[in-house]
Amino acid sequence: MTDRPDDDACPVPLSRYAQIVLGHGSGGRLSADLLREVFLAGYGDRGPDAREDQAVLEVEAGRIAVTTDAFVVHPRFFPGGDIGALSIYGTVNDLAVGGARPRWIAVAFVVEEGLPVEELARIVRSMRDACERADVTLVTGDTKVVDRGKGDGVFVTTTGVGVVPAERDLSATHARPGDVILTSGTLGDHGMAIMSVREGLALVEPIESDAAPLNGLVEALLAAVPETRAMRDPTRGGVASALTEIAAASRVGMTVFEDAVPVRDTVRGACEILGLDPLYVANEGKLLALVPAERRGAALEALRGHPLGADAAVIGEVTDRRPGTVVLRTAFGTERVLPMLSGEQLPRIC
Amino acid sequence: MTDRPDDDACPVPLSRYAQIVLGHGSGGRLSADLLREVFLAGYGDRGPDAREDQAVLEVEAGRIAVTTDAFVVHPRFFPGGDIGALSIYGTVNDLAVGGARPRWIAVAFVVEEGLPVEELARIVRSMRDACERADVTLVTGDTKVVDRGKGDGVFVTTTGVGVVPAERDLSATHARPGDVILTSGTLGDHGMAIMSVREGLALVEPIESDAAPLNGLVEALLAAVPETRAMRDPTRGGVASALTEIAAASRVGMTVFEDAVPVRDTVRGACEILGLDPLYVANEGKLLALVPAERRGAALEALRGHPLGADAAVIGEVTDRRPGTVVLRTAFGTERVLPMLSGEQLPRIC
Repeated sequence: MTDRPDDDACPVPLSRYAQIVLGHGSGGRLSADLLREVFLAGYGDRGPDAREDQAVLEVEAGRIAVTTDAFVVHPRFFPGGDIGALSIYGTVNDLAVGGARPRWIAVAFVVEEGLPVEELARIVRSMRDACERADVTLVTGDTKVVDRGKGDGVFVTTTGVGVVPAERDLSATHARPGDVILTSGTLGDHGMAIMSVREGLALVEPIESDAAPLNGLVEALLAAVPETRAMRDPTRGGVASALTEIAAASRVGMTVFEDAVPVRDTVRGACEILGLDPLYVANEGKLLALVPAERRGAALEALRGHPLGADAAVIGEVTDRRPGTVVLRTAFGTERVLPMLSGEQLPRIC
Repeated sequence: MTDRPDDDACPVPLSRYAQIVLGHGSGGRLSADLLREVFLAGYGDRGPDAREDQAVLEVEAGRIAVTTDAFVVHPRFFPGGDIGALSIYGTVNDLAVGGARPRWIAVAFVVEEGLPVEELARIVRSMRDACERADVTLVTGDTKVVDRGKGDGVFVTTTGVGVVPAERDLSATHARPGDVILTSGTLGDHGMAIMSVREGLALVEPIESDAAPLNGLVEALLAAVPETRAMRDPTRGGVASALTEIAAASRVGMTVFEDAVPVRDTVRGACEILGLDPLYVANEGKLLALVPAERRGAALEALRGHPLGADAAVIGEVTDRRPGTVVLRTAFGTERVLPMLSGEQLPRIC
């Protein structure tokens, strides 16, 4: 019997169960219990206010933006974050870098039988805090349970809906030769936080994920520099892959100046130990922005004026050479191509 | 090395890989290949027309509806459908029964390393066909890959966005004593299609899933009977759980007439073999509708006039007895309570 309460072993009042059982995905009474005691209780005022299978939202006439992401990060809890916060920030950031104002989040869980209920509740509370910080609301959700050995604890898919202000016109196709490329801060923190835990690196100072919501920073930049051409959050595949996508879409070249790329010493050290290049490592709270050269000063000032942009820097420029290609100019003045990430150097980083 | 092409073993032109490798989730070149060769090629004109991380959609002022569902059905292919079609219809139906007109779908895959690429492509083509049938468009997506043994082939999460016409006012709280309860057709087909395959039942006539998009049927009903109180698609937990939710939300009782419930003979037989009650078995192409008693004839006529409603029937009524409780009146005139599904009788049915 999978549906017998395990009262003696249960350390939490959230549910009569200490661990998730298949019945929690049944659509019946146990699903209703889980919804009420873990999800609705955990999300609080950042969660759905009704139990319909859908959320109904009032919108103005205009453009809405929709994005979806599955999160399978391993381990689920890591320095500076967890799968719950990451699933909110990742989707908020995808909307923000497209110029949308994130408003609503839908969330779907695939939970493996046997996951401690308290661990799920902890993830839910983290999502609630992340929604508060990003000023978005969880409006609807779903939970399925798979048999033990057919999942990996919990996978979270979040879908975000945002509103695009009328004047916004950002696109990966808008980069022009002469534009400057900015980062809002140090690169590689998230990926190396995950990898250093997974590989058991004994670091003097632990690396923390940079997971954070970028919508406030984006608003600050666009208020100061509405001419901003394009933005990206360099997650999987890192800066090199994100810039290559824009270079290809805009049919331009790009040059990145190696000695201008801000990387924490601990991150650089961990990359060297593991043989990784920080330009290919995932970030979850960093912005890449392309702006016209004459707006360089205003963009830097806007980014540095926000707590998440204190380490902002110009790291490169758009060129008319080799369209679709990003080139790294090393500290020695030599150049080499930064291809898109080939293969998988960092599995399950997000 | 996970990123070396396995040319000799590759039976399909879709990719240089016969099987999904971790690199297909890297965000780098292999992710781009998979996006182009499997997803964009498979979705065709029902898929995204750009490669931004988000979709931008034009909306009128008013209400939009958002719903999300994870699909973990096992097996992935079954008589009458597959996980791809199911993931489209399930989300379309959640929107439709709330009164929304489904328009856009976002999709996120969690794929297990080793899944044949051709199988993923087959699922994608099925999603395309389902979008065509339901008249919705896939506007954005995401794919993550987990290591072998940490998933189960493929999980699909779909999120649907629809538009709610101004005059619509359906809610689980709107049921009133005297209302009649209709089903659009036979019950239990989807769940027993899955279970008969999984249990290896040797049936003379195989049971086919009823997986289908209900938005056309819903529009036909609401055009004829705009006074419709509430609708549900009785998926997980079946008719008993769906009606109990409405009974609780509206603080009314309900009586279901056992001999009025349409169930195929093969489904009834399979239920008897496996000890299941058709009223608790999942459906994926059936509608429950509550309408005022005086609109009973018009509602039946509207449902039966649609190809998906040919077997529509009145199966019960709303009462003022025992609020929150659904009672079954048997063919012998006795009554017993139909509680919400307790535990899990049919895991991974959707």
